[in-house]
Amino acid sequence: MSVYAITAVLGGQIPLGRQVTVQGWVRTRRDSKAGLSFVAVHDGSCFDPLQVVVAAGLPNYLSEVLHLTAGCAVRVTGELVASAGKGQSVELRAEAIEVVGWVDDPETYPVSPKPHSFEYLRSIAHLRPRTNSIGAIARVRHCLAQAIQRFFHEQGYFWIHTPIITASDCEGAGALFRVSTLDLVNPPRTAEGRIDFSQDFFGRETFLTVSGQLNVESYCLALSKVYTFGPTFRAENSNTSRHLAEFWMVEPETAFADLSANADLAEALLKSIFKAVLDERADDMAFFAQRIDKTCIQRLEQVVRLPFERMDYSEAIRILEQAGRTFEFPIQWGMDLQSEHERYLAEEHVGRPLVLMNYPKTIKSFYMRLNDDGRTVAAMDILAPGIGEIIGGSQREDRLDRLDERMDELGMSKTTYNWYRDLRRYGSVPHAGFGLGFERTVSYVTGMSNVRDVIPFPRTPRCADF
Amino acid sequence: MSVYAITAVLGGQIPLGRQVTVQGWVRTRRDSKAGLSFVAVHDGSCFDPLQVVVAAGLPNYLSEVLHLTAGCAVRVTGELVASAGKGQSVELRAEAIEVVGWVDDPETYPVSPKPHSFEYLRSIAHLRPRTNSIGAIARVRHCLAQAIQRFFHEQGYFWIHTPIITASDCEGAGALFRVSTLDLVNPPRTAEGRIDFSQDFFGRETFLTVSGQLNVESYCLALSKVYTFGPTFRAENSNTSRHLAEFWMVEPETAFADLSANADLAEALLKSIFKAVLDERADDMAFFAQRIDKTCIQRLEQVVRLPFERMDYSEAIRILEQAGRTFEFPIQWGMDLQSEHERYLAEEHVGRPLVLMNYPKTIKSFYMRLNDDGRTVAAMDILAPGIGEIIGGSQREDRLDRLDERMDELGMSKTTYNWYRDLRRYGSVPHAGFGLGFERTVSYVTGMSNVRDVIPFPRTPRCADF
Repeated sequence: MSVYAITAVLGGQIPLGRQVTVQGWVRTRRDSKAGLSFVAVHDGSCFDPLQVVVAAGLPNYLSEVLHLTAGCAVRVTGELVASAGKGQSVELRAEAIEVVGWVDDPETYPVSPKPHSFEYLRSIAHLRPRTNSIGAIARVRHCLAQAIQRFFHEQGYFWIHTPIITASDCEGAGALFRVSTLDLVNPPRTAEGRIDFSQDFFGRETFLTVSGQLNVESYCLALSKVYTFGPTFRAENSNTSRHLAEFWMVEPETAFADLSANADLAEALLKSIFKAVLDERADDMAFFAQRIDKTCIQRLEQVVRLPFERMDYSEAIRILEQAGRTFEFPIQWGMDLQSEHERYLAEEHVGRPLVLMNYPKTIKSFYMRLNDDGRTVAAMDILAPGIGEIIGGSQREDRLDRLDERMDELGMSKTTYNWYRDLRRYGSVPHAGFGLGFERTVSYVTGMSNVRDVIPFPRTPRCADF
Repeated sequence: MSVYAITAVLGGQIPLGRQVTVQGWVRTRRDSKAGLSFVAVHDGSCFDPLQVVVAAGLPNYLSEVLHLTAGCAVRVTGELVASAGKGQSVELRAEAIEVVGWVDDPETYPVSPKPHSFEYLRSIAHLRPRTNSIGAIARVRHCLAQAIQRFFHEQGYFWIHTPIITASDCEGAGALFRVSTLDLVNPPRTAEGRIDFSQDFFGRETFLTVSGQLNVESYCLALSKVYTFGPTFRAENSNTSRHLAEFWMVEPETAFADLSANADLAEALLKSIFKAVLDERADDMAFFAQRIDKTCIQRLEQVVRLPFERMDYSEAIRILEQAGRTFEFPIQWGMDLQSEHERYLAEEHVGRPLVLMNYPKTIKSFYMRLNDDGRTVAAMDILAPGIGEIIGGSQREDRLDRLDERMDELGMSKTTYNWYRDLRRYGSVPHAGFGLGFERTVSYVTGMSNVRDVIPFPRTPRCADF
């Protein structure tokens, strides 16, 4: 018995006439008047199911085959033959079909073949991987994640697992989840009545990380090229289609690199991973183009093909001022650009991805390198048509005196960040990095606009586990 | 200016006579009486530094070169020449050396070239990546992590990011960290005085995950071959050299697989990733063999070369009973094997990795498949010489009635696990998986016995951030 994944069978890797076994789940069954049944079997290895043709002569035809419904698990052995049917080049002529697992009460099977809303699918997170759409998203996620790992490995970057539980809040980047083993009902208190975190698991107050960047800088100033790829957390109570409380982030950090080299790396990364999806997941992308967003393939092809435009923030402000249109948020140097501005610049003005650089220091983080003009920092955002900001990054302030000035301006504790300041005391070098939100990238690639549909397990009150 | 990573320069990829630029940090400086300085420069791209030969004639020789100390950052341009010195085949004859970053007060530089204890290095987690040992560990970690990703990708497995914040405690596998945004000082309470978790971020009590297995099973029964690779957490207050509160775990799950196929996969995985380390990180492994554990290379070679032994738990008990020695924990069918037993079996009795299978159900988790004998389950542990258990796994109970019986025996809530039970209701198939602790694997590979030295950031009270 030679068991094959359906992707191998449909991929033309197996000669016609060969006896093969496949294992998977029934998607549909159709019975012809000629005494044949056509059973579409999928195993998740690719988008398309394999058509299995079952003749009425099989011993369990009446007793079992005619009772197969969506979701039943089967093992089929037969001969691989050319298909006369539409939509497939090969099919399997069953010699034996074994039902491995039935579906209890097919009438109430939660993912029956009828169309379901994404909102409904979020409420049955444990079964939705069996649907076309969520299966396709899982494969595209995998493809993108593998492409990210491959890209950095080939460029000589080392993957560093930065801490998930942390005592610092990075850059004040967002609201934090507390991590604790203290008894909530009756927590230990100090003499002054405050919570006594010295009795907590790590002997201090701890949170879930919002970014691995500060930590990974210490590896950057030792191994030169490093990156993180792991979960990060924001406790922002925004139940929107664009925000997640838990999401994966990619954060490369490069020593001896300035902002321009950083932008080069970001552009190469996006081109490389989008090309991987186009090359390796054409089946799933065809589905997204057909059902979700008809421009999604073309959008990726453009990112891969066209060089990214680069522009200073100040130049962008001038362009927006002269755009001859009224924005909801009026244009003024020093403002944080809103989605309407970013989309105008990327979609209408340049028509391709745009690296915006050198933002006012007042709207950016303390660790970004101050430019010689004294009022901008070496920050960059990459804006992509159809989504807006997809990457944010900067050259880091590598000069201890400037870093200290900035921390003083912001009233930050030097003691808390003394380890970070140490990195500027001992062999400091120019270095730069950026962050790419993984789920935002999956959303961009697939055209799935609600990020809760591109994570494996959406958090909803109706689902027993997330 | 052609900038090269030192691994490329030392790797023989650049012809002698070529002008190259390297960037990195000074490890040592030695001045000869002949008016030359030898500066060892490392950039983290490989274990060895590049020897840079600086002639006294360089304009900044007296003013700068003679002041270089360990940790200073430099950019060197020069001609690549054959080296007459011991320990390297090429060296760089400097034509220009630029000091990019000095070390403040070299006398107190925390990672001066003198030997440091690992305990001390744990207290300066932000600077220890610059040491030979921690740099080598970071590269081996990267190599193993990449090899894991590559292995599963090539075998047709999809990487699934299972939830980090979860509402279920999986299998009661260990003490949990609570995740919350409730005000600890004055948490909301129900009418009965209990904590009102309906007001917490997710509307219920949530924790950090101890395993992605149960969640990933739902993807397994849709995509057939899946795996997790991500952080997991145990709030066990064991400040030992073998336990971590936060560690990464690899958990593949395969549909239509029994225990034997599961063992095959685990064996192939270990062989594949150990071979990658031997092939790709010979430099770092030579260091570990020389300084940490002289058998570490040989140990990996044996795992790669020898087929794993397979043995039933009951057979192992018989062997231990007949071993003719006194164990601290007496041998009895039904007992959980201790380290002394595991090591006897793997190291003395079979002398190579050993897959122990079919354990008593009473010492294993509720989700493991009951064997026909009614008293054992299809569980497996892989025991390796020199470390003991390195992998634990099982075939999962795919029959709803048996799963329910076991949950009843253990007094588990069917409501909580209803989503997990659903997977047995709809197209259930035999499936199996295992867990490989990533840090434990790094510890095994490198011979670094304290797991706090193989994580990027050890948690110590003396380090500002972890």
